[in-house]
Amino acid sequence: MQGFATQEEFFFPQEAVGNGVSWAEGGLLLPSGFRAAAGEAGIRGSRLDCALLVSDQAASSAGVFTKNCVQAAPVLLCRKRVGKNPFRALLVNSGVANACTGAEGLAAAERVTAGLASLLGCRPEQVLMASTGVIGEPLPVEKIEAILPKLCTGLSRLAGPAFSRAILTTDTRPKEAAVRVALAEGSVAIGGVAKGAGMIHPCLATMLAFLTTDAVVPAEELQGMLEEAVEPTFNAITVDGDTSTNDTVLLVASGASRVKIRQDSDRERLVRGLKAVCLSLARQIVADGEGATKPVVVRVLGARGEQQARQVAKCIANSLLVKTAIAGRDANWGRILAAAGASGVSFDVDKVSLQIDGIPVFEDGRPTRLSTEDEGRIFRRPVVEIELHLGQGDGQTIVYTCDLTEEYVRINAHYRS
Amino acid sequence: MQGFATQEEFFFPQEAVGNGVSWAEGGLLLPSGFRAAAGEAGIRGSRLDCALLVSDQAASSAGVFTKNCVQAAPVLLCRKRVGKNPFRALLVNSGVANACTGAEGLAAAERVTAGLASLLGCRPEQVLMASTGVIGEPLPVEKIEAILPKLCTGLSRLAGPAFSRAILTTDTRPKEAAVRVALAEGSVAIGGVAKGAGMIHPCLATMLAFLTTDAVVPAEELQGMLEEAVEPTFNAITVDGDTSTNDTVLLVASGASRVKIRQDSDRERLVRGLKAVCLSLARQIVADGEGATKPVVVRVLGARGEQQARQVAKCIANSLLVKTAIAGRDANWGRILAAAGASGVSFDVDKVSLQIDGIPVFEDGRPTRLSTEDEGRIFRRPVVEIELHLGQGDGQTIVYTCDLTEEYVRINAHYRS
Repeated sequence: MQGFATQEEFFFPQEAVGNGVSWAEGGLLLPSGFRAAAGEAGIRGSRLDCALLVSDQAASSAGVFTKNCVQAAPVLLCRKRVGKNPFRALLVNSGVANACTGAEGLAAAERVTAGLASLLGCRPEQVLMASTGVIGEPLPVEKIEAILPKLCTGLSRLAGPAFSRAILTTDTRPKEAAVRVALAEGSVAIGGVAKGAGMIHPCLATMLAFLTTDAVVPAEELQGMLEEAVEPTFNAITVDGDTSTNDTVLLVASGASRVKIRQDSDRERLVRGLKAVCLSLARQIVADGEGATKPVVVRVLGARGEQQARQVAKCIANSLLVKTAIAGRDANWGRILAAAGASGVSFDVDKVSLQIDGIPVFEDGRPTRLSTEDEGRIFRRPVVEIELHLGQGDGQTIVYTCDLTEEYVRINAHYRS
Repeated sequence: MQGFATQEEFFFPQEAVGNGVSWAEGGLLLPSGFRAAAGEAGIRGSRLDCALLVSDQAASSAGVFTKNCVQAAPVLLCRKRVGKNPFRALLVNSGVANACTGAEGLAAAERVTAGLASLLGCRPEQVLMASTGVIGEPLPVEKIEAILPKLCTGLSRLAGPAFSRAILTTDTRPKEAAVRVALAEGSVAIGGVAKGAGMIHPCLATMLAFLTTDAVVPAEELQGMLEEAVEPTFNAITVDGDTSTNDTVLLVASGASRVKIRQDSDRERLVRGLKAVCLSLARQIVADGEGATKPVVVRVLGARGEQQARQVAKCIANSLLVKTAIAGRDANWGRILAAAGASGVSFDVDKVSLQIDGIPVFEDGRPTRLSTEDEGRIFRRPVVEIELHLGQGDGQTIVYTCDLTEEYVRINAHYRS
């Protein structure tokens, strides 16, 4: 248990940095070599809904995408292009997901990115795209095309905050994180921005995250580093990669710092920095889940292997009864054990112990005698921490989620209106 | 699509009966040979919270239980006794689940059932028990013992409705169903009562169902018939057997009709009757899910096998985004396809078709052009019907669920208070 005093501590934990990596102010545009712009295309009313990121020079890129077998057109487009072509630009729209739109949807994404490429003087294959919003509606091609010239002329080193707002849907606040990393040859930066998911649940909700660095990293190496960083971060929140039709995490390396990876410790530090940025964004996403009032850390230990630990942790993190109990600050801890038991992982209840917010509630197969004072402290910290020890082996994992309130239902019952 | 005009039609569908099976008024006490009683033990305030079912003669019994590896004390007790001993009585309490209560919990259930056995003049092994309510709290043994004599003297052929109310927790109405079945030797009855689940979700929520018949059926045969009837009914609602710590379905055959199973067609009719009663109770449970305004039928066809169809159907039925869209009457059908795609079953979107309430919304990989009028009709019938054709094979299944409203969160955020 860490007992985070504030959500800020939870977002930028000190144990995620150190050893040449340090938190920095800023986001996507902290690394050099990038510019951005954002504008209102009028996709869904009057709000920032289009964002553009441009690398001044051809850059290397890597991507991780949804494992949903229904994949949105921009995901199909990115998967064909990312890592295989020198990157020049990324276009993001919110409001319409361009998913379940058939061949017309893919053609629309291709047409828009081709238009952008001709404005930027590059090949269409050098332009990536991401979309988030309502599924099944056609991409408003004309509206987006109409705003592209303005986005291109408005490109700036100062538009990071505008970019981070333009990609949001039901998020209540932008999500940014950045670090500086000291390598043997010099210092580089890593920046990132994310769009949180509707709710934090493995069945649907789009998560977009875009990461930049000015380190010099070839595409083939970049992909491995990204996958390593995504696993314990974005894949440990219950908005995980294998669900929405549009989930996308992209990493672009401009090389503008001219600092190369010279030794193993450079690679390690860069991955550590990437993980820190991804962890921060992942935690910011769960804390801003639709209607959520607080983030929840579910730690499972003592499982037979990490896989089993994760299966149990996800079942707890996805239990509506657990999430609503947390929302109501009701110390109904039995629901946590019942969710663990329903996970499909078998264990001996007599060996199980459970702590909530540092307070033991169940030890060696039986309830502790909770004082009224202790019971009143459960589920009331700024970050709720659940720690379940199965007593079966050495496997452990951490999964992040949030509570579930009536506001979540209000938002999602009328998402399109 | 069946287009149920009322929920009543959905609860007692004509296609589930016929061929010697017909719906009948009544519930648990329609079959002869049984009496019941209900009372207030004061477990959670002033309400009916204890129910007793007694068979006048030693009867045969069968049971199906939760697959959760955390099993409540009454489940452990029933699994030891059911089918192995001539049945005399079933005691049910609501308010406390007697789960996660360790060895003391099992001892408490044993003590209460032993007390009841001595009052009834039978062996403790002939008494079964079921509990539902808060997990982790001790069974209030003294309160239950204090009411047992009154329950025993109050046993009556008219207490079916009181029994059906006493087993409820957050249900808003009792759930009963009964059929008469014409066998070669004469007519028998099957009756049933159920306690709905919190919400209709595979991760937790207790479902209890108790079924009676006056047919003469040995215990070994009874178990097979029960399992056959449970599979397409209680196991097809997303409160399924492998989840809560307390899920229990019991079937008791008094033999009081003296009508035996003489031929294959008798067995078939009895199973058909059992399935009809289970189907009705299962449908009543989803319709009365916490905060639910309407039941939802999810039919998946064209899958590669029934198993894959069920996997897809359950992912749709469990999607919070689908359930909240239905609550909001928002024809946001893309969420259904996205949930299907996230199920882990792979399929080719270009071959997929989707109908909602009889209206085609997606055909052969692309959205239909929905008229405003048709869009306004979606999710507005008394029973919502979703029909997804995957175009991959012959596998099909039906799963039942309900919508998700703010009221669900209100109920579960403060369940114990």
